[in-house]
Amino acid sequence: ALTMKGFNAKLRYSSHPYINVSWRIYSADIVPAYWATNINDIKTAVDRTPFHTKYVVSRLKDEQKDEVRLLKKFLKGIGVYGAEIKTSGFSGYLCELLIIKYGTFVNSIKSMASWKPPQLVSIEGTNSTEIDNKLYGVAPLVVPDPVDLRRNAAAAVSLKSFETAVLAAKLFLTHPSKDYFFPRREAFSNDELSNAVKKSGRCPVIAIYRVAHGVAPDVLWGELRRVGRKCVNVLKEGGFKVIDVRAWSNEESIAMIFLDVLNCNASVSRIHIGPYPHMGPNSLAFIYKYVDSPTSIGPWVGDDGRLYVVKPVRYTSPIDALLSNRSRVEGKHVKLMFVAKSIDELVKKVIPLGVSKGEVLYWLTEAVFKRPPWLTIKRASSI
Amino acid sequence: ALTMKGFNAKLRYSSHPYINVSWRIYSADIVPAYWATNINDIKTAVDRTPFHTKYVVSRLKDEQKDEVRLLKKFLKGIGVYGAEIKTSGFSGYLCELLIIKYGTFVNSIKSMASWKPPQLVSIEGTNSTEIDNKLYGVAPLVVPDPVDLRRNAAAAVSLKSFETAVLAAKLFLTHPSKDYFFPRREAFSNDELSNAVKKSGRCPVIAIYRVAHGVAPDVLWGELRRVGRKCVNVLKEGGFKVIDVRAWSNEESIAMIFLDVLNCNASVSRIHIGPYPHMGPNSLAFIYKYVDSPTSIGPWVGDDGRLYVVKPVRYTSPIDALLSNRSRVEGKHVKLMFVAKSIDELVKKVIPLGVSKGEVLYWLTEAVFKRPPWLTIKRASSI
Repeated sequence: ALTMKGFNAKLRYSSHPYINVSWRIYSADIVPAYWATNINDIKTAVDRTPFHTKYVVSRLKDEQKDEVRLLKKFLKGIGVYGAEIKTSGFSGYLCELLIIKYGTFVNSIKSMASWKPPQLVSIEGTNSTEIDNKLYGVAPLVVPDPVDLRRNAAAAVSLKSFETAVLAAKLFLTHPSKDYFFPRREAFSNDELSNAVKKSGRCPVIAIYRVAHGVAPDVLWGELRRVGRKCVNVLKEGGFKVIDVRAWSNEESIAMIFLDVLNCNASVSRIHIGPYPHMGPNSLAFIYKYVDSPTSIGPWVGDDGRLYVVKPVRYTSPIDALLSNRSRVEGKHVKLMFVAKSIDELVKKVIPLGVSKGEVLYWLTEAVFKRPPWLTIKRASSI
Repeated sequence: ALTMKGFNAKLRYSSHPYINVSWRIYSADIVPAYWATNINDIKTAVDRTPFHTKYVVSRLKDEQKDEVRLLKKFLKGIGVYGAEIKTSGFSGYLCELLIIKYGTFVNSIKSMASWKPPQLVSIEGTNSTEIDNKLYGVAPLVVPDPVDLRRNAAAAVSLKSFETAVLAAKLFLTHPSKDYFFPRREAFSNDELSNAVKKSGRCPVIAIYRVAHGVAPDVLWGELRRVGRKCVNVLKEGGFKVIDVRAWSNEESIAMIFLDVLNCNASVSRIHIGPYPHMGPNSLAFIYKYVDSPTSIGPWVGDDGRLYVVKPVRYTSPIDALLSNRSRVEGKHVKLMFVAKSIDELVKKVIPLGVSKGEVLYWLTEAVFKRPPWLTIKRASSI
């Protein structure tokens, strides 16, 4: 075990090993790096950091430091500050680059309000034809790193974070408010949440996972995202319509996935699409399988020329669907403990596991009502 | 009014006017045509008929006439004989061409079993490179008319009819049976049909239309097909899942559209997808519309970067959805009379309108159980 006098130290693994040290409410990562005198000699991503520091110190004016702080606080308020997997947003370095480019916070926001993906932001005014085409692709925001133009300094920014920033920028310009910097998170009670869910006829289920000891946050959140998608697929196959999926974790022991299901009652039957009759031996196999089946209706040839049958649904409830596909909806570091079919049940079962009730209710409130706390339209006079 | 001594004569309109004459159970169409000595001089589609007759008489051997009759009866048995809109299947002339090409009924079926769309069948052995490319497109079967190679003699064959023929051919070769030629249609009672529907948890609705007097069958069935699609769209928008749509008409006064709905209970809410935040003024308009709406949940930015809200559903039942969109689900010659929400209700209300109960029950039986009567797997020894 790792010990550092007076500190709580943990050995962690991301793409490379590093040490997390904490003292009271403070936490720091100690990350090893290779020293390089030229950017082309770096061996790991971390080795780039000294070059970034040197670049920012040389280009950022003293009076721009507060502009950087404003931009960071704005992006933090709308939930897109941080390049880690959990947030998939704007890194501190990217904020510094944007202020170097646009001069001030307000000018950055004005530019952001007109961004369209894929958006190129060239800090040093590099011509767009000089940009390595490989920087494009899935990234909605392309900011060639001025110390290493082959790298996209905004590669971590997801489409959700990109569009969130654009929306917040547009709204801030028309309805400026302190709320973007200090959003007021609300926590409703179990009863209020349950009533809201009931009124809208939704049937959210919450899957609770045990998190493996010592897993690095980036690994954990990557797994939670994949597991969330798998849950949605499993429910969809079972005939349930999932309109929203959100993850929460204390990054230590417990994780939860909120699956907002629109239809509380599964239908009794489902339609099963078969092959086209002209397709090899498959079409006859389909006929042989279903023609005398006492539980199915059909087969028949649809207007689109394909074979169809109507079959009984596989699962009676979302919980049944998830538990019947346990191995598909787990990850290497997240194992399914149970699935709660109501907010009451969740709160009752999860608090004894050592999770903060306040934290859970903040998260559930946004999961149920969905409007992010910063997303309000207020008169400018209310500032 | 048109009169012909001893006959019941009606003036009808398709692409050109024609006269339908009937006597007892017999019915004939008298269709005017221009006489042409060369195929390139024809003015209407009907003018081609004498050329077809001359061609078939010159090429079809006497002993092949029974082969043509077998093929026609087979295609009739599986419901794809006839080029009219209602059937969208194989014309008599096309059957003659297939026998001229393949020699016998069995050889035609053997070839048919290996067809894949788009399938070229060249009667005179024309090289595929000589075929006018315009003949391809939406048609699954391309048979250049030997008397006029610019024309596809199989243009009427729909994808459904094509795939039905391929499936029946494959099954006939592995499980030959008289049933393909003489399919045994079944008619279940109201009660049996209602129980089958209930057991599978379906909620079919049947829309009953008044048909305008004297409308030509091709016009009527074209309208019924379009109206059926509109009904499906209206129900889909209302959150109902339609798995099958079928039309029936006595081609005189009444038409019905059977809409098989899988989910009996509409959900309370539905998800409404908005624009991307980066999209012009639309995204802010979306926010302004929903941010303070007491009946909606959200708005929020989804993982795909788009704006979403949850809204109350528009319609409480499939009938509500159809009646609220009456003008969309009607045609020029078919006006909505009422919508039945059960088979009992339909039968009770439609028989007094002069529709044959037997006919309705035959149709409903296939609409509910869906397996066409010829689609069975029997041992060859049962012939």
